[in-house]
Amino acid sequence: MQNLDCINRLINCFTKLPGVGYKTAERYAYKIVEEDGAFTKDFCDALLSVKANVKFCRRCGNFSVADECNICAKRGGDVVCIVRDPRDVIAIEKSGAFNGTYHVLHGVISPLDKKGPDDINLKSLLVRIRDEKITELIIATNPDVEGEATANYIAALVKPSGVRVTRLAQGLAIGTNLEYADQVTLSRALMNRVEI
Amino acid sequence: MQNLDCINRLINCFTKLPGVGYKTAERYAYKIVEEDGAFTKDFCDALLSVKANVKFCRRCGNFSVADECNICAKRGGDVVCIVRDPRDVIAIEKSGAFNGTYHVLHGVISPLDKKGPDDINLKSLLVRIRDEKITELIIATNPDVEGEATANYIAALVKPSGVRVTRLAQGLAIGTNLEYADQVTLSRALMNRVEI
Repeated sequence: MQNLDCINRLINCFTKLPGVGYKTAERYAYKIVEEDGAFTKDFCDALLSVKANVKFCRRCGNFSVADECNICAKRGGDVVCIVRDPRDVIAIEKSGAFNGTYHVLHGVISPLDKKGPDDINLKSLLVRIRDEKITELIIATNPDVEGEATANYIAALVKPSGVRVTRLAQGLAIGTNLEYADQVTLSRALMNRVEI
Repeated sequence: MQNLDCINRLINCFTKLPGVGYKTAERYAYKIVEEDGAFTKDFCDALLSVKANVKFCRRCGNFSVADECNICAKRGGDVVCIVRDPRDVIAIEKSGAFNGTYHVLHGVISPLDKKGPDDINLKSLLVRIRDEKITELIIATNPDVEGEATANYIAALVKPSGVRVTRLAQGLAIGTNLEYADQVTLSRALMNRVEI
């Protein structure tokens, strides 16, 4: 309608964020127009500061401000938990149930998205298995098709080196209602039932 | 978990966008970390350029790069359509069914959000009614509680000056299924039925 190219450019930038469509990007952009200049300045500073300071841990691939993330720096241990992305590290850390180190894949094997084993952070995992005395890999990818396929691939890849490979348990989530659990979850829960 | 203050600061910025909660902001921030520097630079440029170039039309309150938006600059006419925000201008322009000028309120009267008549762009509307030869105001606020209240307020305010005040028709949306229409919409559609 109007020669508001700069707004369209900002809308275009916002659509590149995950899960943001055109309408949502439009709302965000209009919010920026309506907010005062201090907010925008702060926003830019925050963006640039993240880009300037945050890198990936050279050992596990997690976000870090130093060469090694502070999980790798503080913890040793022979158990490594493999996750898809840094958010999963935070989720597991919040549970407090794991005190080993992580390995972040930055993706999963997904032929539909043209992502093969070479496109995820696997090579450095093999290096770690060789150099560190790792005895167990806990594969904590999501329990979906891609996550399962990636888990199986890693298991097959690593088994020959004698490392124990485990997978997070699958079953009923705490607090769910049996009535509303899906069939696959229920059949897994039955299959993996434990003695009490 | 880690001294990643800059990420937290960016997450905090993202949560200020409309409809963005902590988890969503986290996803956006991690996307920024994972993208290359060019994207972030482009993003910042777009943000700053919007802030530097886009202002409000001094006549109608719509977004504009000049003193007057190009709708006000191109069109005259005595019919003014009153909308809540600039996105509504775009929506009505897309319909192609209106060729008068607009007046953007930048909000609606909403006591729950502590927004009274003085907090929306009403004063300049009264000035326009006095200075321009306006014969009709079409109130196109949303058909919800706040929108209706604002419409009624403006109607009461403007009626003494002899200007005709109308409201967008309320009834069944095109393509909807009668079966799934809500009760209020159906009763409005019945009430406002038209001869064929």
